[in-house]
Amino acid sequence: MNYSMVKYVLLRLLAVMGALMVLPLIVALIYREYDSAVSFLIISLACGGIGVFFSRKKPTNTVMFAKEGFAITAVAWIFMSLVGAIPFVVTGAIPNYIDAAFETVSGFTTTGGSILTSVEQIEKSVQFWRTFTHWIGGMGVLVFLIAVVPMADGYSMHLMRAESPGPVVGKIVPKVKDTAKILYLIYLAITILEIICLWISGLSFYEAVTITFSTVGTGGFSVTNSGIGGYSTLSQTIIIIFMAMCGVNFTVYYFLIMRKPKEAFAIDEVKFYLGTLVISGFLIGVNIYRAGVLEDAGQCFHHAFFAVTSIMTTTGFGTLDFDKWPEFSRVLLMGLALVGACAGSTGGGFKFSRAIIIVRNARNELNFLVHPKAVKRVYLDGHTVEGTTVKSVSAYLGLYVITLLTSIFLVSLDNFDFQTTVTAVIATMNNIGPGLGMVGPMGNYSEFSYFSKIILMFDMLAGRLELLPILIVMKPKTWKR
Amino acid sequence: MNYSMVKYVLLRLLAVMGALMVLPLIVALIYREYDSAVSFLIISLACGGIGVFFSRKKPTNTVMFAKEGFAITAVAWIFMSLVGAIPFVVTGAIPNYIDAAFETVSGFTTTGGSILTSVEQIEKSVQFWRTFTHWIGGMGVLVFLIAVVPMADGYSMHLMRAESPGPVVGKIVPKVKDTAKILYLIYLAITILEIICLWISGLSFYEAVTITFSTVGTGGFSVTNSGIGGYSTLSQTIIIIFMAMCGVNFTVYYFLIMRKPKEAFAIDEVKFYLGTLVISGFLIGVNIYRAGVLEDAGQCFHHAFFAVTSIMTTTGFGTLDFDKWPEFSRVLLMGLALVGACAGSTGGGFKFSRAIIIVRNARNELNFLVHPKAVKRVYLDGHTVEGTTVKSVSAYLGLYVITLLTSIFLVSLDNFDFQTTVTAVIATMNNIGPGLGMVGPMGNYSEFSYFSKIILMFDMLAGRLELLPILIVMKPKTWKR
Repeated sequence: MNYSMVKYVLLRLLAVMGALMVLPLIVALIYREYDSAVSFLIISLACGGIGVFFSRKKPTNTVMFAKEGFAITAVAWIFMSLVGAIPFVVTGAIPNYIDAAFETVSGFTTTGGSILTSVEQIEKSVQFWRTFTHWIGGMGVLVFLIAVVPMADGYSMHLMRAESPGPVVGKIVPKVKDTAKILYLIYLAITILEIICLWISGLSFYEAVTITFSTVGTGGFSVTNSGIGGYSTLSQTIIIIFMAMCGVNFTVYYFLIMRKPKEAFAIDEVKFYLGTLVISGFLIGVNIYRAGVLEDAGQCFHHAFFAVTSIMTTTGFGTLDFDKWPEFSRVLLMGLALVGACAGSTGGGFKFSRAIIIVRNARNELNFLVHPKAVKRVYLDGHTVEGTTVKSVSAYLGLYVITLLTSIFLVSLDNFDFQTTVTAVIATMNNIGPGLGMVGPMGNYSEFSYFSKIILMFDMLAGRLELLPILIVMKPKTWKR
Repeated sequence: MNYSMVKYVLLRLLAVMGALMVLPLIVALIYREYDSAVSFLIISLACGGIGVFFSRKKPTNTVMFAKEGFAITAVAWIFMSLVGAIPFVVTGAIPNYIDAAFETVSGFTTTGGSILTSVEQIEKSVQFWRTFTHWIGGMGVLVFLIAVVPMADGYSMHLMRAESPGPVVGKIVPKVKDTAKILYLIYLAITILEIICLWISGLSFYEAVTITFSTVGTGGFSVTNSGIGGYSTLSQTIIIIFMAMCGVNFTVYYFLIMRKPKEAFAIDEVKFYLGTLVISGFLIGVNIYRAGVLEDAGQCFHHAFFAVTSIMTTTGFGTLDFDKWPEFSRVLLMGLALVGACAGSTGGGFKFSRAIIIVRNARNELNFLVHPKAVKRVYLDGHTVEGTTVKSVSAYLGLYVITLLTSIFLVSLDNFDFQTTVTAVIATMNNIGPGLGMVGPMGNYSEFSYFSKIILMFDMLAGRLELLPILIVMKPKTWKR
């Protein structure tokens, strides 16, 4: 393990954190929250100062292998969460540090599960920071670092690969740095567009900005106790569209900008993602209409599509309390939660591309019995998927199931009911936020023990970083010099 | 598809069914249940007559490939269940045919989930038939057919492979027929031994026989409403030992008989199986003792080990209602339910050998990041597992998860609570019997709709036959001439 590189990246990250905290500082000044302004100022200066000062000279040994890339990514995310929690504690919004860390991990990993029972009592600048963590985490803070900090392409690719979601990470353009820049520019463009749309639709500018952070990062924190339910149908529809957009593989937007619509729509997982979204929305709409959840059929479909989009993109916003819907809708939403969004999006979950590979590989296994001479190839986007990728995805499913079950066993020690225990783990590991029962859309994570909160934090990080980085960090061998 | 072979095997099977029904006929005569005796006589004669008469001459084309083997096995099991249900309907024990079919599928697949609310009101001969289905299904009826009916080794291997549980089916001895005979002899020896032990421990001879059928088949049907809870601690302990024995890979017993204890104890999955059993029993014992389920620590461990053995071997007998235990115990039991027993045993579930391959393959994936030059080999029992086996097991996990989730979605349409819906599917697909909530140890499956019952029957068969045969039957291509 190249320790000097670990230190170097962490310090650079600290400097970036310091810079990012200038934004909530400005918000604090605008809303005259002077106590908080002082807190943000001090933390920002401290982070920036320490970060810049100690990372002045580059490490002599900048060699980085896949191992370093994965380990540094995991350590960076843990470190960033521990630092990001400080403002919550210092401003008194969340006095307990473990709770604050939970909220920050939930923020950066774009989970959106909260330990707060009332968000409205928190100052605007702190709420801003809370939703801003979603925006930072959505596209990845190391991708941001690669985009803005000078780094050699050779080793930044390892960081990019470790932080970006999906089974195969493609560089959009030959240079990693340029890829990172393009991704962040698309991300910024979508962000600005949504802020404008929401503002026009009637939200205050502050709400438009914060809700946009939560939407485009597919996070799910809101700034009012009524969540998204308090907004107009128009605003909710805008949010549905932007959630759906951010659950799509961002390569699609690059192709569209480059005027290559054919390539954009040749991506299998996008087709399956949109198809699943439409079919599930329709099924749940029919299910809740027939169950009489709402009298108006149009409203049923509106809320069904909101819930499906919110869960599939792993955002976790809620309009109605789907915990009270018929079992089919509840179970289907939890099923969608397991699959999640597209690779290369800001969403979490197992990812559609992986699910497609698993399904097609399983189908091959069946076909093989009928046609023993058939070649077992898995196709994706019209190309053969490499055998090593199929193996990795299969192994990933194994790791995923093992992590999920182990977490459920550990969280069950808190002795909450079955659906709360199971769906709390599903909702954190897939970075959704709400589950069923106690952690349903109207519930929260405050009642869990510190032990369970730590397990769930682990799950959120494991989910966001797609298991390998966070698991590799726990192997003592990784840390050998 | 070789239709003449399908017909031939089904008719031979019908003849065997006719022969097997002589046993409940004898029981009916002993207990003077003359109406039932007449029923069993007529059904037995009809089955035997039709079976023997129409299968007099062998089909000219006896060529059978893997496809035929798998498809015939699935069709045979469905057919056998439909025929096996007739006595329940004719004797009036279960007047509704779908309910009777559910009970029979549950019997043959050694699931043990019942739609009966009271078993004691049923006649002794019918109860005997009910538990006897467990015994028949435990070692596999086609394996029995291979052992007793003259068949060429070439094609009987395909049937054996399709019906026997586990990722790799090894012939114990070079000839398939001899392997089948040896397996049935061991099975018979264990059966007789348990009957004697239970009889000595205080059960009536009738109870000793029927409970033995349920134990060695790892089924779970009992003959009294109080289940196993009504028996003495000695009898319960005997049942624990025999359940545990029947969850072990039967190759172990062959090695022991051949005086090769070294080979017997070199089998990885048996070590993991026994290790998991002991550790889980201990953890649940502590958990329920601390929760104050029973005051006496010894009794806590006794019932904990009973429940763990019962679930891990997928028997499903209950002494205490574990649905009322703390969440950790409940969730751990459901987790153990997913893994199940050893390959080559009479138990169901995902199987320990597969779980070991999945875990070791996942570990390789992690090691690969740390040591990119390491060779990704999976070891089992000291040997390298073939790449194709690892691939098949990985694909199996995919199929397993897909089948599990799809079933949960469909059963959720009945609108029962989350834990009932989820664990009903887990408990049927892994051939356990009891789950949590409405299908807990003191509950039953009677409340489900016919639609759900059919889905759950499918799951029981899919679980017992390990997915491939029952899935291949549904592919139209399989049935091409």
